[in-house]
Amino acid sequence: MTREQIINQIKEKKSFLCVGLDPDTEKIPAFLLEEEDPIFEFNKQIIDATAAFCVSYKPNNAFYEAYGLSGIESLEKTIRYIKTQYPDHFVIADAKRGDIGNTSKMYAKAFFNRLHADAITVAPYMGSDSVQPFLEFDNKWAIVLGLTSNTGSADFQQQQINGKELYLHVIETCAQWGNDKNMMFVVGATKAQLLVEIRKIIPNHFLLVPGVGAQGGSLEEVCKYGLTKDIGLLVNSSRNIIYASNGTDFAEKASAEAEKMANDMRQIILNF
Amino acid sequence: MTREQIINQIKEKKSFLCVGLDPDTEKIPAFLLEEEDPIFEFNKQIIDATAAFCVSYKPNNAFYEAYGLSGIESLEKTIRYIKTQYPDHFVIADAKRGDIGNTSKMYAKAFFNRLHADAITVAPYMGSDSVQPFLEFDNKWAIVLGLTSNTGSADFQQQQINGKELYLHVIETCAQWGNDKNMMFVVGATKAQLLVEIRKIIPNHFLLVPGVGAQGGSLEEVCKYGLTKDIGLLVNSSRNIIYASNGTDFAEKASAEAEKMANDMRQIILNF
Repeated sequence: MTREQIINQIKEKKSFLCVGLDPDTEKIPAFLLEEEDPIFEFNKQIIDATAAFCVSYKPNNAFYEAYGLSGIESLEKTIRYIKTQYPDHFVIADAKRGDIGNTSKMYAKAFFNRLHADAITVAPYMGSDSVQPFLEFDNKWAIVLGLTSNTGSADFQQQQINGKELYLHVIETCAQWGNDKNMMFVVGATKAQLLVEIRKIIPNHFLLVPGVGAQGGSLEEVCKYGLTKDIGLLVNSSRNIIYASNGTDFAEKASAEAEKMANDMRQIILNF
Repeated sequence: MTREQIINQIKEKKSFLCVGLDPDTEKIPAFLLEEEDPIFEFNKQIIDATAAFCVSYKPNNAFYEAYGLSGIESLEKTIRYIKTQYPDHFVIADAKRGDIGNTSKMYAKAFFNRLHADAITVAPYMGSDSVQPFLEFDNKWAIVLGLTSNTGSADFQQQQINGKELYLHVIETCAQWGNDKNMMFVVGATKAQLLVEIRKIIPNHFLLVPGVGAQGGSLEEVCKYGLTKDIGLLVNSSRNIIYASNGTDFAEKASAEAEKMANDMRQIILNF
């Protein structure tokens, strides 16, 4: 998917919401467990209920790999469903991969050619040759971890190298390997003010922003410091939406939560 | 698998060789492609041919995920085969995972409980809560990326924080979250002299050392700077062994390469 397609979709919907598809059989409605593929059935209903309010879906691989082969099959079916029913939606495989060059290339093939994801999240610790193979596919995206939303981000990401935090080095360095048409960065909503410095380095790149909602980040803060003329943000919400209810009304409640976030985004865009 | 079991196996065999199982259908012998599961068949023959000379196997997940569901199935069969036929061998899932706490926990379950790996490689960029869930399983191991063998390790790992390289910070900090019975570190053979500083921080931890062979690292150098009284090293070789031949003699040639490395290791241990 091209940058223009993403921007067009955002401007049309006045939403930059990404819905995180992190299914957990201990949390999804119990009656779904009787289905042949409970995880896919859950995702399908969540997708149908939220597609009008979001521009992107982000399945996190861990939640599928935890169920072995059947989980991977549910993931494949989920992405295929989105790609056939809602082809304008941007599909992010949140897999946080990264390995030596020839191995990262295998991962890129797995996620782009086989799974048909539009983007994959990438861990930068191993450097250039671990990231670059993900940039060599037309209209596919590497979304590099910059500053994550968890407490552990303090351990290394926020340590200073020559007076500048590691995550700023990572963003600055990785940005040189790609461009704003094949690379985005993960920046957690829980540290919204830090977006000021980040936007000085990458004024035009899209940012994938987790941490709004369950993790405590604020949509207003993120937009105040991160929004650009092309919007430039994909704000993710997972648990708040997909687990809004665990009864028979789960899809309805998920829809309402997604609509609420989309409405907030619409107001922010209109007032920008 | 416990530390004692690993050490006992090494001392018994006088080998600390780990064989990397990175199957690529473009490189394995063509006649195997007629098998129902060429990747498993290849691995099975490589395992049977090398088990006497090594103490560990390390399948890299990328090489299985690249083939989708059937690849994951080959990986499951491979680990099951090792665990039933060669239960003393230490199985490392080289997956380089790491995510926020509740997600890392899902990965830990996937690799330890479902895939039955003894260890998983972990990327440290996201910090404490991304690594700790892998330490909460009895007799299972997190092998954290310290200093990797690729050129990209210069980009961030070798940058200095307060006069000390990031990889040393990573090793020092992560070592506090676990101990030498549930944590190891990846240190590339291509930078053997840097093991001196690393051994000052973690004198007893086992190190998983890739990069000997195809990537140019030297076994002698690695042992000179990294060997401990408990050996403390698992030296990995992948391509040099598994692709020693792509003819009908591939298993025989792999066996000969593994034996050669094991003989070198035996000499080093006897002279230590």
